[in-house]
Amino acid sequence: MLRRTFLVASLGLVLSACAQTSTPVAATQANNETPPNIIFLIGDGMGFEYISAYRYAISERGQALTPTPFDEMLVGAATTYPDDDTWVTDSAAGATALATGVKSYNGAIGVDADEHPQQTVMEKAREMGWHTGAVSTSQVTHATPASFFTHHPSRSMYNAIADSFATTKYGDKWSFDVLLGGGMSYFDRADKNWLPELEQQGMHVVDSYQALEDSMQLPVLGLFAPVALPYSIDDQPRLAQLTRNALRLLSNAQAETGKPFALMVEGSKIDWCGHANDIACLVGEMQDFAQALTVARAFQSRHPNTLIVVTADHSTGGLTLGQGGVYEWHAERVMAINNSLEVLVPGLLERPRDEWQSYLTPRLNLTLSEAQWQRLLTVELRASWELNQQQRALRKTLASIISEVTRTGWTTTGHTAVDVPIMASGPQAEQLRGYKNNTDIGQLLLQIVR
Amino acid sequence: MLRRTFLVASLGLVLSACAQTSTPVAATQANNETPPNIIFLIGDGMGFEYISAYRYAISERGQALTPTPFDEMLVGAATTYPDDDTWVTDSAAGATALATGVKSYNGAIGVDADEHPQQTVMEKAREMGWHTGAVSTSQVTHATPASFFTHHPSRSMYNAIADSFATTKYGDKWSFDVLLGGGMSYFDRADKNWLPELEQQGMHVVDSYQALEDSMQLPVLGLFAPVALPYSIDDQPRLAQLTRNALRLLSNAQAETGKPFALMVEGSKIDWCGHANDIACLVGEMQDFAQALTVARAFQSRHPNTLIVVTADHSTGGLTLGQGGVYEWHAERVMAINNSLEVLVPGLLERPRDEWQSYLTPRLNLTLSEAQWQRLLTVELRASWELNQQQRALRKTLASIISEVTRTGWTTTGHTAVDVPIMASGPQAEQLRGYKNNTDIGQLLLQIVR
Ligand SMILES: [Zn+2]
Ligand SMILES: [Zn+2]
Repeated sequence: MLRRTFLVASLGLVLSACAQTSTPVAATQANNETPPNIIFLIGDGMGFEYISAYRYAISERGQALTPTPFDEMLVGAATTYPDDDTWVTDSAAGATALATGVKSYNGAIGVDADEHPQQTVMEKAREMGWHTGAVSTSQVTHATPASFFTHHPSRSMYNAIADSFATTKYGDKWSFDVLLGGGMSYFDRADKNWLPELEQQGMHVVDSYQALEDSMQLPVLGLFAPVALPYSIDDQPRLAQLTRNALRLLSNAQAETGKPFALMVEGSKIDWCGHANDIACLVGEMQDFAQALTVARAFQSRHPNTLIVVTADHSTGGLTLGQGGVYEWHAERVMAINNSLEVLVPGLLERPRDEWQSYLTPRLNLTLSEAQWQRLLTVELRASWELNQQQRALRKTLASIISEVTRTGWTTTGHTAVDVPIMASGPQAEQLRGYKNNTDIGQLLLQIVR
Repeated sequence: MLRRTFLVASLGLVLSACAQTSTPVAATQANNETPPNIIFLIGDGMGFEYISAYRYAISERGQALTPTPFDEMLVGAATTYPDDDTWVTDSAAGATALATGVKSYNGAIGVDADEHPQQTVMEKAREMGWHTGAVSTSQVTHATPASFFTHHPSRSMYNAIADSFATTKYGDKWSFDVLLGGGMSYFDRADKNWLPELEQQGMHVVDSYQALEDSMQLPVLGLFAPVALPYSIDDQPRLAQLTRNALRLLSNAQAETGKPFALMVEGSKIDWCGHANDIACLVGEMQDFAQALTVARAFQSRHPNTLIVVTADHSTGGLTLGQGGVYEWHAERVMAINNSLEVLVPGLLERPRDEWQSYLTPRLNLTLSEAQWQRLLTVELRASWELNQQQRALRKTLASIISEVTRTGWTTTGHTAVDVPIMASGPQAEQLRGYKNNTDIGQLLLQIVR
């Protein structure tokens, strides 16, 4: 029942997006005197194959394809490679390229190969008096949002990144007007709780979606989970709601000051499902990200002087739709699954094995072969192993069975070097047509901010 | 040494392609009264990841990327799914969609789901008095060329397809003016040798590249191998030469009649390397296909009223650049390999195992670990097995070792459902911008032929 609602909601949103096909032209003709607002949506790990998977997942076989909000905006493709001894990037180097227009090494947060800070789109926007913001489904201190606002030699410096967000000021303003996502535990931690200090200085700190809905004034720091937000498939879609609120607050501020805004929206956990080789989780995160894009497009239809750019920092997991020599991909089986592996695996481990089948059956809604059940029920889990080692072993077996049944292919638990899509709409979107380096995108946005 | 020449030749071609950046604009402004020539290049199996692989293979790490002729032509992406109970197409349904604008079942050659013949771009061109042709590196009776000229319920009917090519006439003309590729054994076979008859009716039949170079008059049937042409990596690049000759002959005919031409050029064996999970072979075929595109672009620069469309029927093998959790792809190791698995595997099998290492070392030019050598040298090959079963087992092990060393990922020996790139340049190229159904491409070409 839950999944049915999920699908229907999706269709409604997709259709309303399709009704807006006249937006890009209108936007292109908008006043060029005032720079456009920028809404930059980054699907972390979202290669072309992720969009293909999402499209087939929301379509019915034998029917016309259900369009996605990505389709009419597709303009080109981008490289993802970093500036070090490999062609495969991580999210830090990828986000740094997109945020600063400069290639760097894997792990770099807003710094170049020599660890020198590079100006980001958000910093230039701030200097020009623009309003700025970011939304993510991971902790806001994670590589992508961090690379748009801070400078650190390593992505793992979560506390230092939180400190940067808390302390970087432009006069009496922070580097952001609105920052929404997970990561409370990095701002309110044993050695330091930033929150009282921030509130005293005028920051509105919220920790529930309702409080965010009620917020009327920038700046807002919204931290809705200790670390990342739960997966959409396990909990609720949330990126569209966060994006709608960020746009509402930034747009109100713009109405007061007449200054444009730049907002970065990250579908952060698309990548995490890819690392976990978890196809149902991935489609859920793609759905959430697509709905956020639909919100952005609706905003653009009301405010045509808005540039929307959508891309990915890299592709994750080596996802392919087809596996093991069979010419099939079973989207409908993917859609039948009700939970991520992150929920299912601990759910199994806390139960005796003779309850696994009854626990899994209504959550997977898949027909496994006798051999597949046997593989799962007899998976080796040594008593001497740590919990996370047990989880890893069980997750690997369950992921492999789900991949067989749905005919989903994976080649890695890491990233790949394949090119990623660029979608764009609005003023200057034409500049992103064709094949680009990922740094071209950051450089274009830096040019637009003036 | 051979490989070095190969790379340098490639750079020259790529650079000359870049010098022609003004072509698309000039072409768009060309006379709209006369329909444009159509050069439709199909990279069989050539997903986005194949272009990424080729680009990194011809680039040097730490240097600016070497552009490919695909880059400046990228306009969008296309679905590939067939009209049957799967999202994963075969080459027959894919080619039928591209040739007729109609979805069909896997295996269909120019027929719809009810096996009814559908008009193809080449047939409409013929009816309008255009010149027509096709070039492929597989047998010309293979699914892709066959779907542009013939109608059969099954792709496996190679003899019947050859018969269709030999006997389908429009007045005193065949359905094609030029047909170049492999497949002599389907035209000259035990039960029927078509060649004397065709020559008697005025067909110029050639079986060597030199004879093709010397051909001055259409129609030409060029069959350069019994079945498919050898792989580029094992023999020589050939698609550019075939394409150059097809364009020379068609263009001469056009100069006489004033009628446009439609030419389909297939990089057929890109797909075959994908099925074999053979990355070095794949990059060699991509190189060959890219060089054919460069030839087409050079023709377009001299004849601006020419539309070039490049796409794929599907992606093959579930190729990804990155494997096993490691953030690396070793393009330079791929480029070090001198032969396809199709040559290496029989080469090993005809030698005693104690000669395998000395046979392979100068051909792979890779450093294998002791464990990898052991896996290879101890691969199980039962004496009771047929030769091709032995080949399959050895190929699987060798492919898996090369994939590990180069960090290339594969998920299948079949096809996948991911979207594929569309590149286009010249009159009407704008029509292919964005996200398309594969049938949209065939429908556009059918509209242009008038
Ligand atoms: Zn990642
Ligand atoms: Zn194939």
